[in-house]
Amino acid sequence: MPLVKIHLPKGKSKEYKRAVGDGVHHALVKVANVPPDDRFQLFFETEPQNVIADPNYGKAQRSPQLTIIEITFNLGRTLETKKALYAQIVNNLGAEPGIPSDDVFINLVEVPGENWSFAHGTAMYAP
Amino acid sequence: MPLVKIHLPKGKSKEYKRAVGDGVHHALVKVANVPPDDRFQLFFETEPQNVIADPNYGKAQRSPQLTIIEITFNLGRTLETKKALYAQIVNNLGAEPGIPSDDVFINLVEVPGENWSFAHGTAMYAP
Amino acid sequence: MPLVKIHLPKGKSKEYKRAVGDGVHHALVKVANVPPDDRFQLFFETEPQNVIADPNYGKAQRSPQLTIIEITFNLGRTLETKKALYAQIVNNLGAEPGIPSDDVFINLVEVPGENWSFAHGTAMYAP
Repeated sequence: MPLVKIHLPKGKSKEYKRAVGDGVHHALVKVANVPPDDRFQLFFETEPQNVIADPNYGKAQRSPQLTIIEITFNLGRTLETKKALYAQIVNNLGAEPGIPSDDVFINLVEVPGENWSFAHGTAMYAP
Repeated sequence: MPLVKIHLPKGKSKEYKRAVGDGVHHALVKVANVPPDDRFQLFFETEPQNVIADPNYGKAQRSPQLTIIEITFNLGRTLETKKALYAQIVNNLGAEPGIPSDDVFINLVEVPGENWSFAHGTAMYAP
Repeated sequence: MPLVKIHLPKGKSKEYKRAVGDGVHHALVKVANVPPDDRFQLFFETEPQNVIADPNYGKAQRSPQLTIIEITFNLGRTLETKKALYAQIVNNLGAEPGIPSDDVFINLVEVPGENWSFAHGTAMYAP
């Protein structure tokens, strides 16, 4: 159910991207109650001139490593869960592939469960 | 009003993409009350290493044909309409260009009508 | 906080893209109470065959210059503010880089403030 879109610098290896994807997904599973096999991620490779980000907003020192993570998932997570998710993602990506916490930007978009069809035109999460 | 973003494998022909776009749009018009000329679609060509999707989540057998469809449209569709929309999209894409129902992933994001400006800086759907 | 995604024709210069980004950002700052240094923008260069847009929906005469702007920002802007934002963006982009008002398409997605982490895994806008 989460649809995760990850914008990162062009030219990273397949292994690097896999590590970023793993870090985000494992955080979702660990703290946000996402099933381990509920993984859908898209990576967008950005050229430097296609990203404009303030280098310091939000008490950060951003580098060209900036990684922008958009997560669309179901409504209902508490503020506590969201905070734990942010912290866990940053922790995971700091460990592997080694992205500084300054360079991890996260945005959540929430939708009702009925807004997903994973396959076959069914609405598996509908009431 | 719907803004439709379609993520599909790189290297498909213009005709293939057009067929996918047609299938999604015709479903929106047929079951979700979208005007026939209210069509705005973006296609994103994905390389295999830029998509990580569980092969089986949601009782599917996904292939590299996986097509991820994001639809942003106005709030207010019923669950019944959403279900009919999923089914119609899968049906249309199965017929043309021939995408297995296992490979059609759909996510809806809903916004109020005042959140669109189609041109000229006007808010055509605002109350 | 706003995450701005701008879809424009492939092949535009860095200066052109910067002007589009400036026009959108300055409008957000001027009429929507966005801090001047709260700027996060992604540009997507689209090939003609990857955009399908009705040429006339919404009383427009669209050209291949079509620029689709997605803005994700915090809930709470009034209709009046949204209308002023659309008008200001169109005005700014008309002046520089010179995009006709027919070719400016805008969509807003709103999220609560707790749905952002700008860096360090913190939720700066959480209550």
